[in-house]
Formats: sequence, C-alpha cells, structure tokens
Amino acid sequence: MPRFKASQLIEIGTKIFLAAGAPIDEAQLVSKFLVKANLVGHDSHGVIRIIQYVNDIEKGIIKPGAKIEVVRETSSSAILNGNWGFGQVIAKKAMEKAIEKAKDSVVGVVCAFNCNHVGRLADYTLMASRNNMIGIAMVNSTKFVAPFGGRERLLSTGPISFSFPADLEFPFVIDIATSVVAEGKIRVALHKGDKIPYGWIIDKDGNPSDDPRDLYNGGAILPLGGDKVGYKGFGLGLAVDILSGILSGAGCAYEETKRGNGIFFEAINIEEFMPVKEFKRRVDELVRIIKSSKTRPGFKEIIIPGEPEYLTERIRLKEGIYVPERTWEEIRKIAEKLGVNL
Amino acid sequence: MPRFKASQLIEIGTKIFLAAGAPIDEAQLVSKFLVKANLVGHDSHGVIRIIQYVNDIEKGIIKPGAKIEVVRETSSSAILNGNWGFGQVIAKKAMEKAIEKAKDSVVGVVCAFNCNHVGRLADYTLMASRNNMIGIAMVNSTKFVAPFGGRERLLSTGPISFSFPADLEFPFVIDIATSVVAEGKIRVALHKGDKIPYGWIIDKDGNPSDDPRDLYNGGAILPLGGDKVGYKGFGLGLAVDILSGILSGAGCAYEETKRGNGIFFEAINIEEFMPVKEFKRRVDELVRIIKSSKTRPGFKEIIIPGEPEYLTERIRLKEGIYVPERTWEEIRKIAEKLGVNL
Repeated sequence: MPRFKASQLIEIGTKIFLAAGAPIDEAQLVSKFLVKANLVGHDSHGVIRIIQYVNDIEKGIIKPGAKIEVVRETSSSAILNGNWGFGQVIAKKAMEKAIEKAKDSVVGVVCAFNCNHVGRLADYTLMASRNNMIGIAMVNSTKFVAPFGGRERLLSTGPISFSFPADLEFPFVIDIATSVVAEGKIRVALHKGDKIPYGWIIDKDGNPSDDPRDLYNGGAILPLGGDKVGYKGFGLGLAVDILSGILSGAGCAYEETKRGNGIFFEAINIEEFMPVKEFKRRVDELVRIIKSSKTRPGFKEIIIPGEPEYLTERIRLKEGIYVPERTWEEIRKIAEKLGVNL
Repeated sequence: MPRFKASQLIEIGTKIFLAAGAPIDEAQLVSKFLVKANLVGHDSHGVIRIIQYVNDIEKGIIKPGAKIEVVRETSSSAILNGNWGFGQVIAKKAMEKAIEKAKDSVVGVVCAFNCNHVGRLADYTLMASRNNMIGIAMVNSTKFVAPFGGRERLLSTGPISFSFPADLEFPFVIDIATSVVAEGKIRVALHKGDKIPYGWIIDKDGNPSDDPRDLYNGGAILPLGGDKVGYKGFGLGLAVDILSGILSGAGCAYEETKRGNGIFFEAINIEEFMPVKEFKRRVDELVRIIKSSKTRPGFKEIIIPGEPEYLTERIRLKEGIYVPERTWEEIRKIAEKLGVNL
C-alpha cells in the first residue's frame, strides 16, 4: 500500500481541487480537512473522498467558490444557504457563526442547507471547544439506515458530535453515527474487499449480512442498538433528521432529491454558566477518574472519546498515511485526467 | 395484581404526599406525573416511586415546598438552585423558563442543581412541543453505568429526550437512556422476581449476568451499543454527564455525594427558523413515510417514538393500571404509617 506524509497528501489534494476549479483557499481548506481525517484514523472521511468530490465538481454537484448566503438571522440563530459549495467551507462558516452568536447571546444555533458533504463533525465541534465553548453538531445526509423493524433505507447515519473544553493531553470530542456503524466504514471494507461483522447491515430483503456489497445492492444499515434496542438509535436518528433536515430546510434523508448534508450546529458559551477554568477542571477530573477505573475481562484499558484519534495522529504524523491501492489508483487517474503532476 | 383507575392512583399519591408534608399543589403535580408514567406504560417511573419519595421526605432528602432560586440568568439562559424540592416541581419550572427564554431569544438553555428525581424527561420536552418549540432534555443522576470496557459504575443512565411539534395522532417524543436499559426497568424486574436479558448488565467482576440482583450487588449497566459499539453510548453518556452535571453545577454521576438529577433543558423557537405549520407538515410527512414502509422479517410494524406510550395510555385509561403486589403492599404500609385512609 502506498504511504504518504500528511503534507504530501494535502498538497496532492490541493492541486487536484485547484485543477478541478476550486479557489486556492477552498482547495487548501478541503484538502486539509480530508487529510486530518486520515491522520486521526478515519480513512472513510479522508482522501478517499477526493474521488467523490472531483466527480461531484464535474457533475455540478459541488460548486467551488459558491457564495454562502444568510437567509434568516437573529442574535442567537441563523440559517445559511450554502449554494452547493464545498461542505467543509459551509460547515466551517456555520460553526464560526454559531460561536460568534454564542459570544453575544450565550447560545448560538446555526443551520445550513444546500450544503455538500462536510466530512467529520469533530472538526467543527472542536472549533467551539477551542473557543472555550461547548460545541454540538448534527448532520443528515442521504438515506442508508432502516428504521427499527424496517427494511427500507429511510434515514441517514445521522452523526452527532459534542466537544468540551478541557486541559487533557488529547482533544476531548465525541463523534458518533446514530447507526450501528458509519457508512464510510462499510465503503472502506468494500474498497479493501473485507467482510463486515453481522449486525451492521441487512440485505435488500431485510436479512442479516456480512457482505458490504449487500448495502450498495438495496440493503440498509441498522440503527444503533441493533436488533434488540435499535429503537434508541432510531429515535436519535429521527431527532438528527428533523433538526438538521427539517429545521434547516435541507430536506429529510428519505427524499429522493436529497443530497449533501443538512446542518444543525450549536455553540454554548460556558462563561455565562460558570468560570471556564472551573468547567475544564471538572471535565479533566471526570475523564481522569473514568480513565483510571478498573476494566472488564477482555479490555485492556478505558479509551476516552477523542483519545484514539489523537494517538493515531501522533503515529501517522511520524510514520505517514497508508492509502489503499484501489483508492490511490483512482486518485492518480483523476490527477492525470486533470493534468496534475503528482 | 391490584388494579386502579388513574384518578384513584392520583388521589392516593396526592393524599400520601400531603400527609408527608407537601403543599397541595406539589402533592398533586408530583402524583399526576407519576401516574402519567404508569398510564403510558413506564411503570419504572410510576407510583413505585411514591415509596422512594416518602422515604426521601422523611430523611430530609426531598424538601417539599422548597423555594427555587435563580442563580444566574441571561436573556437566553438560566441556572436554577432547586434547594432539594421535588424534582418534578423544579424540572417543570426549568422547562417553563427555557420556553420563556426561547420566546424572546430563539433558544433557551436552563440548567438546574440541588434537584431530586424528576421522573420521565418526556413530560418536560412535551411542554416545549406543545408550545410549538423543540424540546431537548438531559439529566444525570447517581452512578449505575460502566464506561465502555470498564467494570466500575461511573456514569448514570443519562437519558436524552427530544420532542417535536407535529399533528400526529400521538405526541411525538423520543426519550431514551444512553445505557442499554434504564435502571428503573431492572428495578421492576427485581420487584417482579424476573430475570433480565444478557447484555443489559455486568456483575461486580465485570462478567455478563441475567440476574437483576447482581446490579444492586456491585454490578453495572452497560452503555448503549453493548460489547461491540458501547463506545457510542459511553460517548453520549459522557456528554449528558457534562451538560447536566458539570455545566449545571449539579455534580457528576461518579461523585460519592451525588444524588438527584442534574438538569440540562433546551427549547428552540421554531418560528424563527420556519413557519411552525410548515415544520409540522414536514414532521408529519417524515413519520407517515417511515410508518408506512416495509418491515423486516420478524417485525409486524414500525413503531414511532411516542406511539407505544400513546397506545398504552388509551388502554390503561379504559382498563386501569395494574400495580405489582409488592409495590402496592409497600404503598399501603406507607399510607397506614402516615395515617392516610386509602
């Protein structure tokens, strides 16, 4: 498998996006976000997406340089029309606006529609926690998930992210799909030719399957909680679809015309509730106590959300990022087509 | 098993709380909330709690008639000191305040500390949706849940609730513990002498168990997602503990002095994002499409959050509420002790 330094991949991505028609700042920003996903170990949201994004630009789905319009606005809320620019560009703007609102009004809620794939939510909630605020983010996207008891795809994997300011070694961020697994993980298995565990997906007839191809052949991902308590993930998925799809005006996952991500972002200004220093001290203490507690048989340690990403990033910054053959081959072809010298 | 009309149980609860020293409005309110939980089928949050609450009043844990103080306040946020009154009284006040703030400032976030057990979160998020707002609620409580991979109780079952305005036959409300199961369900199994499914709890050594007694003998409940993807429920549980335990000032679940519920409530004024009528129409359409979609083998229908509670309530309003022998015996003894004629 070819291996790259992060800086190399960022340059490759930037060059490709530039050649595909993106302004330099957008090409850099998107490329950085994708490579960051690889660095922290979420390859499903990494450079594999370059392929999809360039295709999307060619099809007019992504419109580089699109102007972001503020459709409605109050001192604590806003709705943005992303006009189908890069998702990362729109999402970054949306969280910046939520933070700005929270500075003045304690809480800021910003929604966005006409927005392409934004990548990892953690990137945006971390913007809030780096500003001493609590960041909350949800997005919906195209349908991949069956409702609890159902066999049709009607909801998206609807991720939720929370980030909290702390003084830990690693950035403390929760970022989970409300389905058993994120779609990207199944896509990665498909690219690698791997099987997936039972309990992740059902095939087109509603039966359990361990073949990632079944998902892309009319199957569906199961909601978090699976066969037994999947009504919980289903409930969370509905909440995400409504907040990021209906309140935002972006549309629900089930809609045939649905594409991109609907955005619901929130920032909460801690300083209006308690001194930030005290908040951080208490979060640190909570994490320290949980981290140092006894493990179950079969588990070596307790891993805190945000910790594995940090550890993977340290390793990959040193050792580089492996890109699967098939993914690299496709990126290489795209570069060639666009006349980019890699 | 003895059977009662809802109105009978409300009267019984009111009389007992009155005799235990509660003002009449609080006695009625708490009794109504508890019986409502029985009506909608959540017996774990129903009149079984009368026993606990009266004990708590006697021990000075619940202080009926306590004054609720506003500790900090902005146009979009507040922190309440509940001064250890009834949780239901404090939580109702907190959501009223969040709704009031959201009317003026689009979003209202209200936290509360020194607050006893509030019962079902759905009762409060439904207050928001009845006011054409989105209601969001989280509470933490005493530790019952192990972190993913851990065997010590360090988090609470940390429920999250969302309610959305709609024109459905039933109130649309999501109300789920971020653990595999709510503690009350295990308590009900214990009272009934039932076994519980494997995958709900671990015993004090971290091994799987189907005996509810093992939970109360040093065991722990597992986070949502269980052995495979329990890091998701763990992440959500951490977010709930921080928002409702740290931001509120109520304290985290792991703290030895922890009691009652820390509150994080939020109301979002839909009207500032889109016309409420349009929002409701879209929610109705989402629910209609999901409800009418094809089921998996083994499932008869797709059940929407809030729907089973509504159906149970219709039945129990007609047929009455069954109270387990042991629970009724304890309630009867308490009434006798307090000189209440049932």
